Amino acid sequence: MSRCPFASRRGFLAAAGGLVAATKAGAATETAAKPAELSQTEPFWGERQGGIATPQQRHLYFAAFDLTAKQPAQLVALLRAWTTAAARMTAGQTAAPIGTDETKPAPDSGDALGLLPARLTLTFGFGPGLFVKDGHDRYGLAARRPPALVDLPPFTGEQLVPSHTGGDLSVQACADDPQVAFHAVRQLARLTYGSATLRWTQTGFLGDFGADRTPRNLMGFKDGTRNPNSNVDRTPPSPFDGSLQRVVFVGDEGPDWMRGGSYVVVRRIRMALEHWDRTEVDFQEQVIGRRKYSGAPLGGTNEFDTPNFNAVDSDGNPVIPDTSHLRLGAVELNGGAQILRRSYAYNDGTNFIAERWPPWRQGLEYDAGLFFVAYQRDPRQGFIKIFERMSKLDALNQFTTHVGSGLFACPGGVQQGSFIGQGLFEAT
Amino acid sequence: MSRCPFASRRGFLAAAGGLVAATKAGAATETAAKPAELSQTEPFWGERQGGIATPQQRHLYFAAFDLTAKQPAQLVALLRAWTTAAARMTAGQTAAPIGTDETKPAPDSGDALGLLPARLTLTFGFGPGLFVKDGHDRYGLAARRPPALVDLPPFTGEQLVPSHTGGDLSVQACADDPQVAFHAVRQLARLTYGSATLRWTQTGFLGDFGADRTPRNLMGFKDGTRNPNSNVDRTPPSPFDGSLQRVVFVGDEGPDWMRGGSYVVVRRIRMALEHWDRTEVDFQEQVIGRRKYSGAPLGGTNEFDTPNFNAVDSDGNPVIPDTSHLRLGAVELNGGAQILRRSYAYNDGTNFIAERWPPWRQGLEYDAGLFFVAYQRDPRQGFIKIFERMSKLDALNQFTTHVGSGLFACPGGVQQGSFIGQGLFEAT
Repeated sequence: MSRCPFASRRGFLAAAGGLVAATKAGAATETAAKPAELSQTEPFWGERQGGIATPQQRHLYFAAFDLTAKQPAQLVALLRAWTTAAARMTAGQTAAPIGTDETKPAPDSGDALGLLPARLTLTFGFGPGLFVKDGHDRYGLAARRPPALVDLPPFTGEQLVPSHTGGDLSVQACADDPQVAFHAVRQLARLTYGSATLRWTQTGFLGDFGADRTPRNLMGFKDGTRNPNSNVDRTPPSPFDGSLQRVVFVGDEGPDWMRGGSYVVVRRIRMALEHWDRTEVDFQEQVIGRRKYSGAPLGGTNEFDTPNFNAVDSDGNPVIPDTSHLRLGAVELNGGAQILRRSYAYNDGTNFIAERWPPWRQGLEYDAGLFFVAYQRDPRQGFIKIFERMSKLDALNQFTTHVGSGLFACPGGVQQGSFIGQGLFEAT
Repeated sequence: MSRCPFASRRGFLAAAGGLVAATKAGAATETAAKPAELSQTEPFWGERQGGIATPQQRHLYFAAFDLTAKQPAQLVALLRAWTTAAARMTAGQTAAPIGTDETKPAPDSGDALGLLPARLTLTFGFGPGLFVKDGHDRYGLAARRPPALVDLPPFTGEQLVPSHTGGDLSVQACADDPQVAFHAVRQLARLTYGSATLRWTQTGFLGDFGADRTPRNLMGFKDGTRNPNSNVDRTPPSPFDGSLQRVVFVGDEGPDWMRGGSYVVVRRIRMALEHWDRTEVDFQEQVIGRRKYSGAPLGGTNEFDTPNFNAVDSDGNPVIPDTSHLRLGAVELNGGAQILRRSYAYNDGTNFIAERWPPWRQGLEYDAGLFFVAYQRDPRQGFIKIFERMSKLDALNQFTTHVGSGLFACPGGVQQGSFIGQGLFEAT
C-alpha cells in the first residue's frame, strides 16, 4: 500500500481552477483532513493482479459480463480500454480525464469526485465463454483455453439461478468505500457498449473487525481462520502462513499468460439466518466444528490451535464431528487441497421463500448470506475437490443454499504498456 | 458523540473468561488499536431519537414491518423489548446478555461480536396501519392517529411496488459499519416473532466525502447543499443553518408523544444511470440547476451561493430553468416548505427493465439510485407540498422513478425507564 502519488479525484476539484471555482465556504472545502487509510492506494501494475493477495478491503462490487463482440479485435480493444481506466481509477483518478467540454457526456460519471482512492483494486477474469460459447469458437481462442478453466460440475444441493451465475468476463472491485467500488465497475461497464453486456452483479461487505483479526460472517462464527496467509506472523507459526504462492498463484504449469494469475470461484451462498438464529449454540458449534465465541476448534482452546481430528469423546465419537464444516474443509483430510477465501457478506433485502427444511415454513426471509470468493492455482485441486465432498456431507448445508456461481481465469498482472491478459492474444 | 463507556461487544470477548479462553495468538487479539471513529457511540436516551439530527453515518439498513399482534399488549411488549435491545446495541453491546448456556439459542446472533459501536442509531416509526388497517381499529388507537400522519397521496409518475412500500412499523438503522446496522435490525426482527413480520428492507451507503462536505449521489452531483443544518457555521451564514427545530421536530402542535419527534418519508428512487451517463454535462446541469463539479447554482460561483431565481439570460430565459430540480425544490418558491434529507445511495444489483423513454431500450440495468429519507415536522407542509409540484414538472423525472414509499411518525426520544412511543399508549 502507498499514498496516492497522482493527481487525485479529490485534487481534481481543487486544481481544475478553470472549471471549478475555488470555494471559501467555511469548513466545506475539498481538502479537509481525512483518515489516512482511505488515501491509500494498492498497486495496479505488477506481476500479479491486485485484489487477490491484497489485504481484504471492506466492500465488494462484483460484476459478470457476457461478450457480444463479433471480432477478437473488439475484445482486445475492450481489454485495452479497461486497462487504462483501471490503472487510473485504482490511483484515485477519474476513469478518463474529464476535460472542460460540457457539451458532451463526461467520460466519468463523477460520483467519486471528492472520494479518496480507498485501496481500490480491480481484478479481471475470463470465463469459459470467452473461449467457447455454446460450442462456438467465437474468437479463435478455444485451443488456448487453460485445462484448469473447466466447466464447474453440478454439486449436490445447489440451486443456481441464471441471474447470479456464469459470465464470459468478471470484474471484482474491492475498496474501503462502497461508492468507490460501484463507481469503478460502472465506468468499466460503460466501456463495454457494443462488445459486452452486464450479466449479473453482487455487492458485499466486511465488518471492520480490525487488521489481522478473523472476521465473523453473518452466522456469527469466525470465517477464514485457516486461510493461507503470508502476511501474518503467528506464534506458534501456522501451517497456513507463507503458502500463498503454492496455493493461489499459477506457476510454470502455465499457460504463460496465466503465470502469476489465479482461478477464482464465486458462489452466492444464501444463509437461512432466521433458522440459524433459533438453533442452539452448541448445535451450531457441532455444525461448524468450532466454538462460536473463541473460534477455537472443538477440543481446543484458542482460535489458531491445530484441530485434533483424531480426538474422540468418552462415547468414542469424534470431538470434531464427521459432518462438521471444519473437518470437511480441512487441508489435512482433502489430500492437501487448499483455497484462499476472500469472501464478503451480502445483504440484498428480503424475498419470499418456501423453506426446504422442517417445518417447511413459507414467508419473507433475508436474501442474505455469503458471497464466497475463493482463489486457487487450479480449481480441480482446490474448490472442486473440497466441495465435491462437502456438498454431500456438510451439516452446514442444512442452513445454506448455493444460488449463484462462477469460475474465471484471472491472468497474471499487467505491466505498463500492456493490457489485461495480453499474452492470451499473442500466444502462438 | 461519545466514546462507549459500557462493556462492549469487543470487550465481551476479552472479559468473558469463563466462556472464552484468552488467546495468545500473536497479532490476532481482540484488543488491537482501532480507528477512533468506529468506537464512538450516539446517545440512545434523550429528548429526541437518534438518527435524525445525528451526523449521517455511512451505512443504512431500513426495515418496515407489518403488525400481526392481536392485542395492544403484544404491541407494547414488542416496543418494550425493542427499547431494551436498542439501548444495548447502540452502546455497542449485544442485544441481550449472551450468558453461558449454550444448550439454547443465543439471544444475539453474534455476528457483531468484535465490532465497535460504529455510531449506531436506531430510529423507530409508526405507520398509518398501526392506527387503522384496512378500516379496522385493531388496537384502539385510531382516534390517536396524528393528523400529520396522512396516507401519502398518489404522485405523478410513481410506480410503487408493494415489496418496497408501506409498513406499520419502521426501523432505520444507521452505522459506520454495514454489519453493525444489519446486525441490529436482525436482532430486532427476532423480537417480532408472533407480533410483527418483516415487510421490506433496504440497504444504503454514503461515500466518505469527509465531514461537513456535501456528498455526491450516484448522478455525480452534490446532494444536500441546501439541507437544514444546525451543525455547520458557514461564512457567509446560510439560511439553512439553525433551522432543524423549525423544520424537522414536532413542537407544541403535538400530540404529546410526538413532541421532539418527526415524520419520515422514505422513497426508493431508481435512477436510470446508464441513460444519465450518456447525457451531456451541460444538459445534466440544466436538469439539476447546478454546476456538476463545483455544485454552484447556475449563474453562481460557489456551492453555497444563494441561487438567483430571477436571473435571465440574454434571450430572456431563466438561468435556473423552470423545470430544474433546484428551482422546484427551493424553499423560497414552495411557501417555506422544507425537509431534512438524510438519504443514502442504494445498489441492489441489476435487473431487467423496459425503459419508458426513448429509445425504449430493453435490457439489464442497475437497480440502483437513491433511498431518499426526509424528516420533517409535518409532511403536509414538507415532502407532500414540495413533491406534488416536483413530480409533475421536474426535468429530473426523466431519469428517476419512485418505486417504493413509506411515511412513518417517529415519536420523540425515550427516557430511561420508558419505551419507544410510550405516551401514545398512555394518552387519555
